[in-house]
Amino acid sequence: MDIEYRPPEHPYRVIGTTPSRPDGPDKVTGRAVYSADVILPGLVWGEVVRSPHAHALVMGVDTAAAESVPGVLAVVTRADLPRVGSGVIDLAGAPVDIKQATDNILADDRVLYAGHAVAAVAARDRNTAIEAAKLVRVMYEPLPAVTDVDAAMADGAPILLPGMVADHLGEPVSGTNVAWHFRHQFGDPEAGFRDADLVVEREFRFETVHQGYIEPHAATARWDEDGRITLWTSTQGGFGARSQTAGLLGIDPSRVTVMPVEIGGGFGGKTVVFLEPIAALLARKSGQPVKMVMDRKAVFEGSAPAPGGKLAMKIGVREDGCIVAAAADVWFEAGAYPGWVVDTGVKSIFSCYDIPNTRVDGYDVLVNKPKSGAYRAPGAPQVTFATETLVDEICRAQGWDPFEFRRRNAAREGTRRSDGPVFTKIGFVETLEAARSSDHWTTPLRREVGDGRVRGRGVASGFVLHAGRESSVALNLDIDGTVAMTIGSVDIGGSRTSIAMQAAEALGIPGSDVRPTVAHTGAIGFTEISHGSRTTYATGAAAFAAAGRLIDTLRGRAALLWAVDPADVAFDDGTFFAKSDPALELSFLELAGRLDGTGGPVSAVAAVDLPSPGGNVFGTHIVDVEVDKETGRVRVLRYTAVQDAGTAIHPVLVEGQMQGGVAQGIGWALSEGYVMDVDGKMANPGFTDYRMPTAMDLPMIETIIVEVPNPRHPFGVRGAGEVPIVPPVAAVANAIYDAVGVRMSRTPMNPARILEAMSRIPAGSDR
Amino acid sequence: MDIEYRPPEHPYRVIGTTPSRPDGPDKVTGRAVYSADVILPGLVWGEVVRSPHAHALVMGVDTAAAESVPGVLAVVTRADLPRVGSGVIDLAGAPVDIKQATDNILADDRVLYAGHAVAAVAARDRNTAIEAAKLVRVMYEPLPAVTDVDAAMADGAPILLPGMVADHLGEPVSGTNVAWHFRHQFGDPEAGFRDADLVVEREFRFETVHQGYIEPHAATARWDEDGRITLWTSTQGGFGARSQTAGLLGIDPSRVTVMPVEIGGGFGGKTVVFLEPIAALLARKSGQPVKMVMDRKAVFEGSAPAPGGKLAMKIGVREDGCIVAAAADVWFEAGAYPGWVVDTGVKSIFSCYDIPNTRVDGYDVLVNKPKSGAYRAPGAPQVTFATETLVDEICRAQGWDPFEFRRRNAAREGTRRSDGPVFTKIGFVETLEAARSSDHWTTPLRREVGDGRVRGRGVASGFVLHAGRESSVALNLDIDGTVAMTIGSVDIGGSRTSIAMQAAEALGIPGSDVRPTVAHTGAIGFTEISHGSRTTYATGAAAFAAAGRLIDTLRGRAALLWAVDPADVAFDDGTFFAKSDPALELSFLELAGRLDGTGGPVSAVAAVDLPSPGGNVFGTHIVDVEVDKETGRVRVLRYTAVQDAGTAIHPVLVEGQMQGGVAQGIGWALSEGYVMDVDGKMANPGFTDYRMPTAMDLPMIETIIVEVPNPRHPFGVRGAGEVPIVPPVAAVANAIYDAVGVRMSRTPMNPARILEAMSRIPAGSDR
Repeated sequence: MDIEYRPPEHPYRVIGTTPSRPDGPDKVTGRAVYSADVILPGLVWGEVVRSPHAHALVMGVDTAAAESVPGVLAVVTRADLPRVGSGVIDLAGAPVDIKQATDNILADDRVLYAGHAVAAVAARDRNTAIEAAKLVRVMYEPLPAVTDVDAAMADGAPILLPGMVADHLGEPVSGTNVAWHFRHQFGDPEAGFRDADLVVEREFRFETVHQGYIEPHAATARWDEDGRITLWTSTQGGFGARSQTAGLLGIDPSRVTVMPVEIGGGFGGKTVVFLEPIAALLARKSGQPVKMVMDRKAVFEGSAPAPGGKLAMKIGVREDGCIVAAAADVWFEAGAYPGWVVDTGVKSIFSCYDIPNTRVDGYDVLVNKPKSGAYRAPGAPQVTFATETLVDEICRAQGWDPFEFRRRNAAREGTRRSDGPVFTKIGFVETLEAARSSDHWTTPLRREVGDGRVRGRGVASGFVLHAGRESSVALNLDIDGTVAMTIGSVDIGGSRTSIAMQAAEALGIPGSDVRPTVAHTGAIGFTEISHGSRTTYATGAAAFAAAGRLIDTLRGRAALLWAVDPADVAFDDGTFFAKSDPALELSFLELAGRLDGTGGPVSAVAAVDLPSPGGNVFGTHIVDVEVDKETGRVRVLRYTAVQDAGTAIHPVLVEGQMQGGVAQGIGWALSEGYVMDVDGKMANPGFTDYRMPTAMDLPMIETIIVEVPNPRHPFGVRGAGEVPIVPPVAAVANAIYDAVGVRMSRTPMNPARILEAMSRIPAGSDR
Repeated sequence: MDIEYRPPEHPYRVIGTTPSRPDGPDKVTGRAVYSADVILPGLVWGEVVRSPHAHALVMGVDTAAAESVPGVLAVVTRADLPRVGSGVIDLAGAPVDIKQATDNILADDRVLYAGHAVAAVAARDRNTAIEAAKLVRVMYEPLPAVTDVDAAMADGAPILLPGMVADHLGEPVSGTNVAWHFRHQFGDPEAGFRDADLVVEREFRFETVHQGYIEPHAATARWDEDGRITLWTSTQGGFGARSQTAGLLGIDPSRVTVMPVEIGGGFGGKTVVFLEPIAALLARKSGQPVKMVMDRKAVFEGSAPAPGGKLAMKIGVREDGCIVAAAADVWFEAGAYPGWVVDTGVKSIFSCYDIPNTRVDGYDVLVNKPKSGAYRAPGAPQVTFATETLVDEICRAQGWDPFEFRRRNAAREGTRRSDGPVFTKIGFVETLEAARSSDHWTTPLRREVGDGRVRGRGVASGFVLHAGRESSVALNLDIDGTVAMTIGSVDIGGSRTSIAMQAAEALGIPGSDVRPTVAHTGAIGFTEISHGSRTTYATGAAAFAAAGRLIDTLRGRAALLWAVDPADVAFDDGTFFAKSDPALELSFLELAGRLDGTGGPVSAVAAVDLPSPGGNVFGTHIVDVEVDKETGRVRVLRYTAVQDAGTAIHPVLVEGQMQGGVAQGIGWALSEGYVMDVDGKMANPGFTDYRMPTAMDLPMIETIIVEVPNPRHPFGVRGAGEVPIVPPVAAVANAIYDAVGVRMSRTPMNPARILEAMSRIPAGSDR
């Protein structure tokens, strides 16, 4: 399968337009079916019993009282899950020890975070299930808890997984909460720092944040008499939910069918299962279909937030404006079980720049919090907060233009990524140039506005790679010349449309003539989860390949109609023609109408397995903030996000991704964060106290798309969904510095922390 | 696409076994979703206003009173359907004048049968809709009605379609109810009859009968803001319901999506739409999804029963036992609009026999009854009633063995069908031989059992062709080595299983490893309606073709793994191997587990467009009856059906088809029939008065399958569903003659008619 970029021979007809989404009417009318909307005959409710302790031994679980409640149909505990031996299970691309993965679904002999699931109850109605769940008696023996990396790594810290043997730079280590220590080193960092004229150095901290999808996790399961399971679940990937559920239940994946439902946000948080295996177990035990829906507290406490942690970084530059060395130590909270986000995060850490000498040490640190997971560009916002703050600090110190300094050091084709691989064609410099010439940057900022409010402007760049992997697409030519397209990709951001548009472009027909359907897992070929910005990229490439096959078949049909050799029939710009006879010419629509008697319906299917990463995505952001020096409140006044989207299939959807990512990044910067109490419990598990920005808190996010085609995609697509969340934390921090002269190095930069930081400015400073 | 029969190189491993149906658990637990089970948010009900008159002009429709009922959301009349010009619409393979097709959905300026739909009401609940429907005021001007072919053809008969120009042997004729008169003549029938030593001649009559599916018609429609329609409907073909609904509404078919639901019987009666366009119109007008469900009276009066009519036939034989001539005039009730069943029926009329001189005149006669439609082997039971009665009469008259006489004259490869085409390899003789040597035939019948009850034995054969046409199948290889199969064929008799088994056989894997899904019309290639016994045949052939493509792809993957040329990889008996190296060998399952990194998921799609007919099917039946001479009641004591199924993919499902067809044929023979009152209304529109046989009325139907592979199918399949209904009427009539010596020539042969016929036996007869 040729997946190289092919410069278009004609201007694109569909790509670059902005058709309406086919799911639009259903969503705006409320007709769209989400997981919690599923109703089945005999449906009963399931509720989870969760640990009130952040860390405890489980000495026993007594379900008798709960089981005796009228209307209770089943109670399940860890004993109902298969006792697995050693081995790993693939959780959204990450190999995870299957015992640990199972323990995270239903605790075994210990609970590792407040909210850890211990048992579950199915009952005729939700209230009965909730009340019965309270009657499940769990005998805990509480242990001291650690909820940040410093406490977890302190001498004498309670060890979360006493049996774990950790890999520390290749050496096995026991009795530690540091589940993994790894290093990427290139060149001679120490020599590089010695060569530097200026070295800046700073430590950063960041709180756990949550993806904050509006739709809580919800799963409905049927377990039929013939051993087949049907799942309706809010997931980013039907095949992922299927294989994980099957793997945790110890059955063949083909016995599980995951039905398509709409999803109310995922952002990485719906790539692993939580409720699904429990709902299935309850369904089997009760003999009824079981629905489970998390409340918001359960979502915060029992899903997979983005890791908090800390980071120490230094960067050295020469007087000539070249970065010569960079080094960092990155400690990410793994949560309760070993994770992978720190590994992904450090791939972004220095990747915007061409630095000869670098070192990154990554540490995955167990703490008594839910297991960390994917959140939009996993790990990149945290590490970029550090990098782009130090870059800003360097520019300030030296009086260098922030764009010119970045451009001089910018990663280009051939530059080494933080962790080693070398970039193909990328568009970072183009984002810098577009930002520098933007209306935002060229419009001066009025800094003092009275009433103790001051304004500042910040700039930050960011990088993230995007995934490739496997996708399948089926195309069925309809009798009216339209094409029905079936995909396995869950649509989390308009990908139905952006994939259909690629098929239409390849077929030379209008975008609206390709009608997409997301199929259940029994009705389409394997398709990887919609994560890692892969969907428009990889499933789009599969659509391109399927379109090519459809055209090949149609060339054969045209040859039959014209009584010419199939090799004589060509297709170009939406038209079939015979090379030997210019009079023989049919448009796609015309040929579709003449297929009767040429051999039956025309369909095509194609799959891709694209290398990962499939591409490299860069963005550069500019933000103006206003700081109220009296209250410490920061207001975002103007925001411009510039991004290389490769070829933007549907520019409005790309803009939507950029605006959404920025909004989340601003929340991360200013207001979001898990507040843990002294017992290790989350003190703010609700949207009242966990403050996500609303439309009232944000200006319209301005967007500028630059298009440097991805050499690894036929239309040049780059995965657009993740990089917009990468620069905002740093950009906002740099703007705050510009406004009030304080270097914020901890998220969220909320009013209390702003005031505290400003209180440390020496009296008599000019700010 | 090679669709020739391929004699198996190894014994079949899957074909011929009898795995459980995947739809079994859902159906026996009541979980299966049928059309009327569909529930949508905001669902409202629709009810049809039907004509109380068999024939009337519609002078006006006043909907004001109905519209003013609280809870009524919409009222539609014919004015809401598009005004179409001339042209035809395809109704399940039959081209129908679009004006007539539209008039049959909602009457225009005249109603042509009692039960004809005139308007429809949508309301918040069903009772409100029913009550409001009563308030729709239709101004009728009644006309005289004709409900049988004699009355319709009488001088001065009221003309149903005054504007119709009929084709009578190629001549245009106006002012007639005979919508079509056609002839098939071969050889010189008159000369043949002159050459005959015995000519038997008789007239037959048959009442309208109904398919009697247990599930009434039900349709739910959504009409979305973007003009897309979604339909859930009890249909034998999603694509048929789609194209008909779209055609009647004047929109592109791709704007309609028909969702898969289970079907509670069809037997041909669910191949055309009735409620679907009305539900869609009500949905558009009310802005809500609308569900409509017929009651049984509406089903009888407003769907598409099998035509009644009359038939005059004569057959001439020579003393040497050869049939030399046969002639027939066949008048079928078209119902209210011109039809096609008589055309299909006469294809069976003399097709069991090789007769040098034949003539058939067919007449399609308009009467004031619902438009006739398909019912299992359309038209064949009626015509075969005549043919096989006369054959029995000849054998009786000449003292010839019924099997030997049939065998001597039997159609074989090369014999001309009644209407001209020549048979390929067929298995009629084999059914005769199997019947003659059956336990049933070789077990003597005790004829007198006292109490005025006498027993008789009858034999009859029958023929029907089966359809070919277009089907699509998609196969997706799953990661655990199973295969998910997607089809567009509605499963009316276990075809999910019989198609999956063919895919499994071709792939060399267990039958249960192919998991079938019936897809909605937007998720699979075009697939013709499940009618004409085509599904296991044609969609099975598509599954075979798709399996071949899947194997081709897998050969390429094996070549990659083994680093050999793809042409070097062969597949045989479930195993891939390298021809050049015997050590290189992988089973299907083994290869499926080693695909990672070989190019992504493996899927295949194939479609067929098979010639129609796809095959020729024969059966021979034996029946023992007991006649109560006092009451005229006929009881079926024993029944054996012998059938050439070609290769029986799933013998138990074939037996089920045979038993079901026989049961329906016995009902047709003994008890079923529309009773029309003097006003032209059906007097028995319910299952109490329209007497279908129940399990209490029937013995276990014994079955004998003979297998003469169909040369036009890779596994030799013949469509098995229809021929079993063809012989029973004649077989029962012949058995009654054997018991009590009366030749019944009218269906149903109910007690009144038996007594009436016996009363005409001359006193002193030995019976």
